Formats: sequence, structure tokens, C-alpha cells
Amino acid sequence: MKRTNRRRVLQLGVGLGGGLLSPAQDARPLGKPLSPYGERSPYVKSARTTRVTKTPEAGSSATPLADTYGVITPSSLHYERHHAGIPEIDPAAHRLLIHGLVKRPLVLTMDDIRRLPSVSRIHFLECGGNSGVEWGEKTGPDVQRSFGLASCSEWTGVPLRLVLDEAGLEPAASWMIAEGADACRMQRSVPLAGALDHALLAYGQNGEPLRPAQGFPLRLLTPGWEGNVQVKWLRRLHVTDKPYMVRDETSRYSDLMPDGKARIFTLTQEAKSVVTFPSGGQKLSAPGWYELTGLAWSGRGRVERVEVTFDGGATWRDARLDEPRFRFAFTRFRLPWRWNGDPAAIASRATDESGYVQPSREELIAVRGRNSGFHFNGIKYWKVAPDGSVSNVDA
Amino acid sequence: MKRTNRRRVLQLGVGLGGGLLSPAQDARPLGKPLSPYGERSPYVKSARTTRVTKTPEAGSSATPLADTYGVITPSSLHYERHHAGIPEIDPAAHRLLIHGLVKRPLVLTMDDIRRLPSVSRIHFLECGGNSGVEWGEKTGPDVQRSFGLASCSEWTGVPLRLVLDEAGLEPAASWMIAEGADACRMQRSVPLAGALDHALLAYGQNGEPLRPAQGFPLRLLTPGWEGNVQVKWLRRLHVTDKPYMVRDETSRYSDLMPDGKARIFTLTQEAKSVVTFPSGGQKLSAPGWYELTGLAWSGRGRVERVEVTFDGGATWRDARLDEPRFRFAFTRFRLPWRWNGDPAAIASRATDESGYVQPSREELIAVRGRNSGFHFNGIKYWKVAPDGSVSNVDA
Repeated sequence: MKRTNRRRVLQLGVGLGGGLLSPAQDARPLGKPLSPYGERSPYVKSARTTRVTKTPEAGSSATPLADTYGVITPSSLHYERHHAGIPEIDPAAHRLLIHGLVKRPLVLTMDDIRRLPSVSRIHFLECGGNSGVEWGEKTGPDVQRSFGLASCSEWTGVPLRLVLDEAGLEPAASWMIAEGADACRMQRSVPLAGALDHALLAYGQNGEPLRPAQGFPLRLLTPGWEGNVQVKWLRRLHVTDKPYMVRDETSRYSDLMPDGKARIFTLTQEAKSVVTFPSGGQKLSAPGWYELTGLAWSGRGRVERVEVTFDGGATWRDARLDEPRFRFAFTRFRLPWRWNGDPAAIASRATDESGYVQPSREELIAVRGRNSGFHFNGIKYWKVAPDGSVSNVDA
Repeated sequence: MKRTNRRRVLQLGVGLGGGLLSPAQDARPLGKPLSPYGERSPYVKSARTTRVTKTPEAGSSATPLADTYGVITPSSLHYERHHAGIPEIDPAAHRLLIHGLVKRPLVLTMDDIRRLPSVSRIHFLECGGNSGVEWGEKTGPDVQRSFGLASCSEWTGVPLRLVLDEAGLEPAASWMIAEGADACRMQRSVPLAGALDHALLAYGQNGEPLRPAQGFPLRLLTPGWEGNVQVKWLRRLHVTDKPYMVRDETSRYSDLMPDGKARIFTLTQEAKSVVTFPSGGQKLSAPGWYELTGLAWSGRGRVERVEVTFDGGATWRDARLDEPRFRFAFTRFRLPWRWNGDPAAIASRATDESGYVQPSREELIAVRGRNSGFHFNGIKYWKVAPDGSVSNVDA
């Protein structure tokens, strides 16, 4: 940024107030003591919004992405999507069974798994149903409700390939059925091609053991793929020669196309981005300089570019991307913006390392129709009104 | 790792147990419902150990580094060092005053600061007094008590240079006195040379606002320097032409040398590392393969190499470093190790991008004596007994 810009950015800084350091204000009591386990400030109230079915154990909760900084999602705010609630598992009693088309079936304890060579990587996780509301006539009113089924953590675990190599894959082995230890025994068919490149048996999240809502003590992590396939509370990998068409890859997570056919196994989450500030429900206090910011990610690897428009797509400018950019991870983008008080229509557009460019909502609907339900990654517009209020385009 | 190694790594995996999937075990009740703000598993009990003075508001608490994964420290377990407790600050009422040798004194609100161009970066923070026990005749018994005054987070904030450029530094400006809003008005003299390169006015930590124990709503972050200078609850930057020799850079955080002189302003935390597994207080259940792991960091930038010894320093092997490696951040190192049941003496040695090699404890004491008190970065040995128990060398 040029120095002239920098000057303008801070024009909001007011001059030195005389009373700021008066002796009366300077006397303060001792603060709170040290603690074994810290908590956030009572002034910070960000929370997940929950959507449940007839039972509170089945539903989803969304990350308040517009309240987050950087690329790490606080574990307490990681999105949830459970089909039968969160089991409370004693890690000492948990086992992972690996069987089927393998030469040496294995039963591994958590101690066994933690003794194996491991890696830590920052990866996003996104529900295949994230942004589902954007397929409708009325789009989502804010970032949390439209994009909040996506989060990003530092995950630690053992490469899947290492464990399957040890079990010894039979020549016909090409899929595996991953099964969770929740009440519904969540199952998904996972193609070994692709999974063997990046998948982890993950036991760590943001420096600590997985949270229960994220699969404690063990989950499958297949970076870049839809969340549901990354089975939580992982207890079984059944190696097979075909997918098994289990309930949650047929009843859900498949895309109904305009011709009545359905796409199944749409695993890769395509490039996507959203402006988190300014975004729906927020308000600009006055004209002047702001930092526009947002998040971009791609299931095909690294985000290479994010463009931002302020005029409804007529012109686009490159945003600055925080470095380093990780593969299969949130990338934070930023752009200083001077709002002059006029109406504005703001959106972002991501391009990933494969060259894929995030499509407009209209382009996406032209191909996929309106009953697709899952895997929406269209460009999201926010409009700024002259009074500074920000809303979705339908508001 | 060669395939032959991989086979051995998993020799602990037992065969398929017949009863694992019996129908009786397969029936499970629904789990817990979704929640607005998540918690960790009741089976996970890692906590900070606290050391206090006569008042619980002054003291330190140490991160259980041996329980952490990857490089991110969970915010609830970030180390603490407070001199007058943790103030509870209303961010709407908080102000940052910038005055002294500047052309335009400024008073900034948190809203002002959050509108400015910002960055997010992963950086360690280490108390200048970390590992102080290692100067003594008896070294620390475990990682937490010897090395736990160090943690690593993703921080978000505004570059200090941007704000000081806006205020306009006078030609004589070369230091600033940073002051916190805690009861003791913690102050430190900060040299602008160096601080202007990397320092942030940080308001975000691991995706959320700073925790109160880490300076909510605003702290100074000077990557690579000792923790105390990175003033929490930052309320004032007084730009000066010299350091002010304030209490906590004379009564503490200076290094008493053998000749009776004291080094002051030892800001840069030199390269350091510690093996966190196996480490004091842990136990190896049986001979066989394990993943040795640990953490390395340097106040001079990137960690370039970590070597590990299993034989008391006679021979050293390169550990694998998790990528990407950030500047002024924890680097996680790992090395598969087969314990044959014999006694072992284990340690790690870090080399940073400046070429600096972490010294032995003896080398450090030869130069600095035993009354230095602060800034210990010597090599730390753990011994493994034939029964698998791990302890410090003095045990």
C-alpha cells in the first residue's frame, strides 16, 4: 500500500484526549488469578447457530465465520453435523478394525495409533450441504447461515497409507467402507484412489485431542472432500472392491440434476470463497477506510487468487492473500476499501491451483438446476446500503 | 521411511478379535446433542500447572507441551505470566494512546484498530524466564515445568509500523515505552529497530479474539522476543529517544553474568528445542517402535534443523521437520525410534536460519554462570530406564 493510502486509512484516529491518563482512572484493582484451563472474555459471545431435526441429536451447527480471524477456527466453534448425536467414548476402550481385502486384518488401540509416524497439517472441513440455502429463490442472510458449515483446523494423525500398507491391500482392493462408533453407525464408501494420497487417521485438532463433536478419539480425514465422508468416531475400515451404496451416500450428499439423474460421490469440494466483512447483518458506521476480508478454499489444493468486486461484478480487483497458503486449507484474503457512502454490491471469486474459477450462482444453477441441494460453491453477493447496513441481495 | 521399517512399526497391531462386532456391543444410545460452544472430552484432562507468589494474581502457569500436538497451542492452555492478575476489560471502553516523539498523537478505539489492514501469522511466545530451573543444580523433572512457559498461536493484528507511520515518528524516535492496562501498569522499553520489522498490535488469537489471559482486547506482539516485552492489555505506546529502565527490565528479565555485571534487554529468544516424547514422567510400555517427537523454535527466525541423540550425545540423527516451517514459530520434529529395552539418554539440538546451534547446558553455564536466571536455551536430556520409565538426568 502506498504511503498516501496509509494516511487515509487512519483518518479515523482522533487526537489525544486530555483526560485519558487522569490519576483517578489509573488506579485499578488486581485482576483475576491464574488458572489451569483458560476461558474467553465474557465480552466475547460468538456462538454456533444450530439447526436440528425432530431430535436434537440430528442436525447441524454453523461456525460464525464472520467473527473469526486468520484461518484457524476455534475448536469450540467448529461446525457440527451429526446424525445420531455425539457419543462419549473412552479412548482406552476404543478400537479401530481394519479388515476385508487385506492380507493382515488389524485391531488397533489408540495407544497403538499414537505410536505410529504422524503429521500435522492445516486443513478445512466442509459439509457437502454447506450453502444449500443458496440454491433456493431466497439466498442466505449472513455468512454463518450460508457458509458456516465449513471450518479449518490444524489436524494431527497417521497417514492412512501407512496403516493400509501394513495391513497389506489385496490386488482387488479399491474402496473402503468407513464406519463410525455413533449410534447410527455412520458409514461411507471411500475410494482408495485419492484417499491414499492425503488421508489421515486423525486424533489431534488445534494442538489437543479431537473434540468429541469432531470425532474423539479418532476420525477419518480426507482433505478436500466433503465432510460426511470424513467419518467421525472412526471404528472400522472395511476394504472392498466397490462402493456399498450406504444410506448417507444415496439418501443424502448426492446431487439431483435437472434431467432427474443424480450425481453420487461428489467428494471434492470445488473452489469457493466468501467475503466475511462487510457481510450480511453487519453495519458500516460511516464512510471511510475499512479492511475488506474473507475466506477462500478449494478441495483441489491451494487457492491461487481471489478477486473482489465492489460494483456488482462490473470490475474485479485482486485481494491480498495471507501467506503461507496451505493446500486444502482456508486462505484469508484482505483488501483495504474506502467506502464513499454510495450503494455497493460486494463479492469475491476464488481461483485454485488447478485453474478452476469459482462460478457465479447463475452459472452454477444453469448446469445443476435448483434441486441439487448439495455442493453449492457459487459467488455470494452482499449489498451495502447508503446507511451502511449490509444484507444479502434478496433482502 | 522404507517399507521394511513400516512393517516393524506396526508389529504391535494385534489380529482381528472375534467379538468386536457382536450385536450386543453394536446397540448404542443416541449421543449428546449439538451445542453453541463446544467443550473437550471429559477424558481429556491436560491442564496448566500454576506457580504463584504470595498473591495468586502474580505468578505463572505452564503449558503441558508434552500433551500437545502439531504446533498450535490450545488457547485455554497457553502459558500465563501475570504480575497483577488478569484485568477484565470492556473492549468498547478500551483505548490505545500513541504519543511522545510523534507528529500526530493518536487515541485509537478497538473499532478503529480492527478497520486497519491486518495480517495473521503463527508465532511462538516464550517467557524470558522459561526453563529457569535448568540453571540450577537440579534440572526440571518434566517438559511442562522446565519448558512450559512457551506456547504458539495464530495471531492476528495490525503491523505496528503502519500505525507508527501514521502517527509520524520524529527523527529522534528510537524506543517506545509500552504500557498495559493491568493493575501494575506493566511497562517495558521496546527498541523501534527490530520492532518495526515484525511487531503487531494483536487482537486475534487462534481464530477468535485474544483470551483475557493473553491480553484481551489488545497486546503488543514482537515475534521472537521474550514474552514480557509483548505487553498485554496494551493501552499506551510512548515513543521516546531512549529506554526508561522501568521496573521489569531491571528487577527481572536481565541476566546476571559471572563477573557480576548484568545483561539487560536480552530480547531475542535464542534457538531452543525439547523432546516432548519420550520425556520426564512418561513411561514406555514395552520395547518396540515409537515416534519420538518434540518442539523447536528460534527468535532469529526459522528452525532449519533438529538433531536427536539416543546415546547421550555420542551420535546425532536428523529428525523430520513438519512443513511448512514458519518464522518465529514452533516447529514440530519427529523421528521413528525402536527402543530395544536398554537405557537411553535422549535429547534434541536445534539449528536456526542464522546458523546458530543450540548449546549444551554445560556450554551455556560456562559462559553465563549459574545466576543468570533467565534466557536458558541449553540442550535437555531425558533418560529412559530399562523398565521404560523416563526421567530427567538428575532423577
